Amino acid sequence: MSLAEDLLRICQEKGLTVTAAESCTGGMVAAAITDVAGSSAIFERGFVTYSNIAKTEMLGVSPATLDAHGAVSEEVAQEMARGAVGAAQSDLAVAITGIAGPGGSEFKPEGRVCFCTLSSDSVLVETVEFGALGRANVRERSRDHALQRLIEAAQAV
Amino acid sequence: MSLAEDLLRICQEKGLTVTAAESCTGGMVAAAITDVAGSSAIFERGFVTYSNIAKTEMLGVSPATLDAHGAVSEEVAQEMARGAVGAAQSDLAVAITGIAGPGGSEFKPEGRVCFCTLSSDSVLVETVEFGALGRANVRERSRDHALQRLIEAAQAV
Repeated sequence: MSLAEDLLRICQEKGLTVTAAESCTGGMVAAAITDVAGSSAIFERGFVTYSNIAKTEMLGVSPATLDAHGAVSEEVAQEMARGAVGAAQSDLAVAITGIAGPGGSEFKPEGRVCFCTLSSDSVLVETVEFGALGRANVRERSRDHALQRLIEAAQAV
Repeated sequence: MSLAEDLLRICQEKGLTVTAAESCTGGMVAAAITDVAGSSAIFERGFVTYSNIAKTEMLGVSPATLDAHGAVSEEVAQEMARGAVGAAQSDLAVAITGIAGPGGSEFKPEGRVCFCTLSSDSVLVETVEFGALGRANVRERSRDHALQRLIEAAQAV
């Protein structure tokens, strides 16, 4: 059973809905969830916010936070998740912002990805250093990490 | 060279930006575009609007249009594309809304997908009957069709 199938099953059992705010994964989390038939029961929208302006306009991320910490930061991940859960009115949200590569940026290394997983009673903010595995690998691992965190958050509700 | 690589090359040559409003593809078009290194030059946001409410809230699709024609309709595809290009302030947009299956809905057959491809000087609205190829195939073909239409629209600008 895929991660997305697991997520659908657990959320359906508990009556939970999810959303995703994606920067470096660029829609891969939403695509994985909607790959499963019946996913409309738990997922009704996703946000692909690749630029800073998109993060601000679509999710309400503060320009001051972006200036102070950069787009790839735990602070921005947290504001992305809060904006997503507010806009989607979902029970759970995950936000992903990182450096997929090739090469680093913002003086940050390739493979660094910040996540925020949010539920009504928990916030998990973390930075994972996947390393310079290549763009496709960093993106796939980030997608799977995000799905795993949503599963854990759903289990804990 | 992949469709997304082609799209990036053409849009970069012409200084064009793109966005995507996705229902049945659920983020696959955005994911394909952002799979290519350097895609931030042409793509800065995408909309995954799986539910009717998301189509209305994120893209300004009229509830009356949804009621009259259903979510899988050329009318809704066109409103999705116009909403996306307005919100993203991009040069090109594609919208995709269809029945990925399994099974039909809204009294419409599995595999029916409506697309709208928009540029500053053209609008292409179409319905493609992919048939009951299975959910994954319908979604992949829809993604590739959307990318191909964006390439054609970029070439024609």
